[in-house]
Amino acid sequence: MKFVVIGGDAAGMSAASKARRNDPEVEVTVLEASTDVSYSACGMPYNVADADRDMDDLVVRKAEVFRARQGIDLRLDHTVKAIDRHGKKVLGTTTDGGGFEVPYDKLLIATGARARRLDVPGGDLPGVKSLKSLQDGREIKSYLVESSAKRVLIIGMGYIGLEMAEAFHERGMKVEMVEMMPRLLPYVPEEMADLVLKELASKGVGGRLGTGLKAIESASAGMRAILDEGELDTDMVLAGIGVVPNSELAADAGLELGPKNAIAVDKSLRTSDPDIFAAGDCADAYHVVTGQRVWIPLALRANRAGWAAADNVTGDSVELPGVVGTSVFKVFDLEVAATGLSVDQAAEAGFDPVENMIKSRSRAHAHPGNQTLFVNLVADRKTGRLLGGSMVGKEGAAHRIDAVAVALHAGMTVPEFFQCDMAYAPPFSPVWDPLLTAANQLLKQL
Amino acid sequence: MKFVVIGGDAAGMSAASKARRNDPEVEVTVLEASTDVSYSACGMPYNVADADRDMDDLVVRKAEVFRARQGIDLRLDHTVKAIDRHGKKVLGTTTDGGGFEVPYDKLLIATGARARRLDVPGGDLPGVKSLKSLQDGREIKSYLVESSAKRVLIIGMGYIGLEMAEAFHERGMKVEMVEMMPRLLPYVPEEMADLVLKELASKGVGGRLGTGLKAIESASAGMRAILDEGELDTDMVLAGIGVVPNSELAADAGLELGPKNAIAVDKSLRTSDPDIFAAGDCADAYHVVTGQRVWIPLALRANRAGWAAADNVTGDSVELPGVVGTSVFKVFDLEVAATGLSVDQAAEAGFDPVENMIKSRSRAHAHPGNQTLFVNLVADRKTGRLLGGSMVGKEGAAHRIDAVAVALHAGMTVPEFFQCDMAYAPPFSPVWDPLLTAANQLLKQL
Repeated sequence: MKFVVIGGDAAGMSAASKARRNDPEVEVTVLEASTDVSYSACGMPYNVADADRDMDDLVVRKAEVFRARQGIDLRLDHTVKAIDRHGKKVLGTTTDGGGFEVPYDKLLIATGARARRLDVPGGDLPGVKSLKSLQDGREIKSYLVESSAKRVLIIGMGYIGLEMAEAFHERGMKVEMVEMMPRLLPYVPEEMADLVLKELASKGVGGRLGTGLKAIESASAGMRAILDEGELDTDMVLAGIGVVPNSELAADAGLELGPKNAIAVDKSLRTSDPDIFAAGDCADAYHVVTGQRVWIPLALRANRAGWAAADNVTGDSVELPGVVGTSVFKVFDLEVAATGLSVDQAAEAGFDPVENMIKSRSRAHAHPGNQTLFVNLVADRKTGRLLGGSMVGKEGAAHRIDAVAVALHAGMTVPEFFQCDMAYAPPFSPVWDPLLTAANQLLKQL
Repeated sequence: MKFVVIGGDAAGMSAASKARRNDPEVEVTVLEASTDVSYSACGMPYNVADADRDMDDLVVRKAEVFRARQGIDLRLDHTVKAIDRHGKKVLGTTTDGGGFEVPYDKLLIATGARARRLDVPGGDLPGVKSLKSLQDGREIKSYLVESSAKRVLIIGMGYIGLEMAEAFHERGMKVEMVEMMPRLLPYVPEEMADLVLKELASKGVGGRLGTGLKAIESASAGMRAILDEGELDTDMVLAGIGVVPNSELAADAGLELGPKNAIAVDKSLRTSDPDIFAAGDCADAYHVVTGQRVWIPLALRANRAGWAAADNVTGDSVELPGVVGTSVFKVFDLEVAATGLSVDQAAEAGFDPVENMIKSRSRAHAHPGNQTLFVNLVADRKTGRLLGGSMVGKEGAAHRIDAVAVALHAGMTVPEFFQCDMAYAPPFSPVWDPLLTAANQLLKQL
């Protein structure tokens, strides 16, 4: 059986490896447009932060290893241009102008997502960068060295922008950020988002909300960004305005698309063509809380979906229940974590949501080193069901959020969650864990 | 209605306060044998560690506050000697020799637990201490100052002994530990327990397993401990050999006892007398995983049970599902966390258990500061149900364990737990959280 994978990143290589482990008889071919496979994309901001680290440190497994040890026919510089569903083959080109055709019995589309580009005049100047691929990371690091950039303007204050703000700050740069939306991190309460703004300010990072970018111009020294209000001189611009799924190949082949134009897949990762699977940042998923299709491109899901697609290709019958969108990021000394639905998302999904935010402590009464930990929980007023949660604090948010995630997967109500027997020791939490205090306060509103 | 509470610590004061909040008409009397109420007992090792801190820093709320602001009739130095169930009153004495009688409509026994004493010759010498009450803590700190003790021998290597080893080490003392049992922390796999021994050794703390204490003698300088094998000179001995429930009062009144002689209570915290409740370290609980009665004296349960008893006293009908025994402690730079059943406990409870331990990392591939994190999960072979888990590592254990605890409360199987969508960012975990990797490896054995 010929299993062809388009895309050699998290989902694609997970699937290729798993298919070979499941059944050594399966012929696995991976077609990767770039020359990079299997790297830790999420580690890039931390690599950019350190001038002495090679970007290739982030490669988890080299192409040769996949070929020699796992027997995967891994072809780099192979860009697939079309899927011929009728003929069951994919067609493409290499950079030397050559063409190729590869027949498949089962196909996996794992083409990922790409950074949204700045759609303004000057958005394509050489000093304007984005960060999605390893090559993007290399280009940023080279540019920093070659241009001796001292100032950077980050467009967009989502988690990539925020992680990169810390990275550039570590490199000794003056960092300015602008965000078009009037508020930061709309999935957490405003008071919690304000903590992030304060953290940025405490590190000398500028942040302006409700500020759009109109154009970027070359200036005598560096570049000039023309904003809705005013201008800003900088040496470099980073676009952190989100990603879009690489689903054009699937759409051109007539496959159904889901939310945000991601490739629509069922719980077994099958597209609308039963011989074609899709996994990773290019594909959608079911949301465990809403039961609806959703596009939340995150690394764990990509790996998980790659495995599950491979299992289905090699004859098992595996269904993934879906995602709750659990995420965490670090911005300087703050941890920001969230899972499930925000109150707005819950209302949109048809719930009658109520939320409650508490301020708790990261350690016990009178224990040295105590930090404030903010916890927000969201529930459905009618059923008491827990719908989501978020946390911001200098310690204790990153791993605690998983307890909420598990509760969402289990469909727990707030009263049930409040009864959970959680760990306590003075260096790690108050007797009543902040999650329990948050649940107890939310209970009073149900 | 007269609500009388015997014992003014976590469970007792939680109940007293909650009863007054629920219904200001209820007359609440608390009878506390000592002169301390409402302190953070678990914080005592960290307080002992710091010569400059006053032990009374650990008092969360003072007696006067309970009296003045909450209207609780809080009587210190009131030792209850008997419960007259027929006459519905309690009888006792104060240290000046006076007697008292207090009538009740509803009674809560919240007498806690006491440290087990060393039952060997010399076990009552002045330099032999234990740590359960705030007064114990004060005596240890005074003794350290007055005796200028430089060496301490800790009998028992459970969590109190281990936390105190760190505390004494912080005070610059040479710490030796002995444990009668042949292995440390029997509820975690031996390889994980060995990490704790290594951590102790790395700090210069001696630890001998399988070593009983036969006697303690006064010596020319300090004391001499006579062990099964050999002798050990020391300036101070700390007994950390566990606690026993203060249930004699209840037993004398004819109330039923449960495991380890703790007072037997139902899910509404009622004893075998419907007008008498028990909560805190003196009372038992239902184990959520086994459904059986269990005695696991921990602070969160004490507080939770105090609240629930008060709710039932003031007319609500509240049942607590029970405990899973989630615990965490810190020993020097290690976090040790556990929840649910160990493989031995699971076998004893009638399951057909299987366990699997993995070594994972606390951060992403190539992220600086990565530490090893050991995770052990236990499941039932027949049903696939998750039964328990434990973790040891320098970071990432303390809060992660709560995700396992929630899964136990939800009755999740290992396949279900493995599907949970957990948080990932390079500073906090690998893409596959160590819990998920552990679940995946355990799956292969089901």
